[in-house]
Amino acid sequence: MSQTSTYTVTGMTCGHCVASVTEEVQEIQGVENVEVDLATGAVTITSANPLDDASVRAAVEEAGYQLA
Amino acid sequence: MSQTSTYTVTGMTCGHCVASVTEEVQEIQGVENVEVDLATGAVTITSANPLDDASVRAAVEEAGYQLA
Repeated sequence: MSQTSTYTVTGMTCGHCVASVTEEVQEIQGVENVEVDLATGAVTITSANPLDDASVRAAVEEAGYQLA
Repeated sequence: MSQTSTYTVTGMTCGHCVASVTEEVQEIQGVENVEVDLATGAVTITSANPLDDASVRAAVEEAGYQLA
């Protein structure tokens, strides 16, 4: 069974930014799918188990952006 | 002897965009240096010989942007 969490990321301005965030978040253990809405900054993550917020924050910051 | 030309590129929003344009323009034969000002869209190109505007336009479009 999977679960879905949505975070808001600030600072993304283009498709390259979306790709960077998607790539880093996908590397978190258990993540099955990542969808990013550039206009709103919403990052929706489907994962096999509950996500650790700190891991998501670290991945977003690794990509060069911030959680709202 | 080198020469410098400046073009204005529209649509760049972040450092990834700058990197994409720089990479494509650097591949034009004779180009020695490329500097991009994200805020103004100015792309300054130093080259060994006069640049063909059509080559610059093609490189910018290949990167996914437009000459102003």
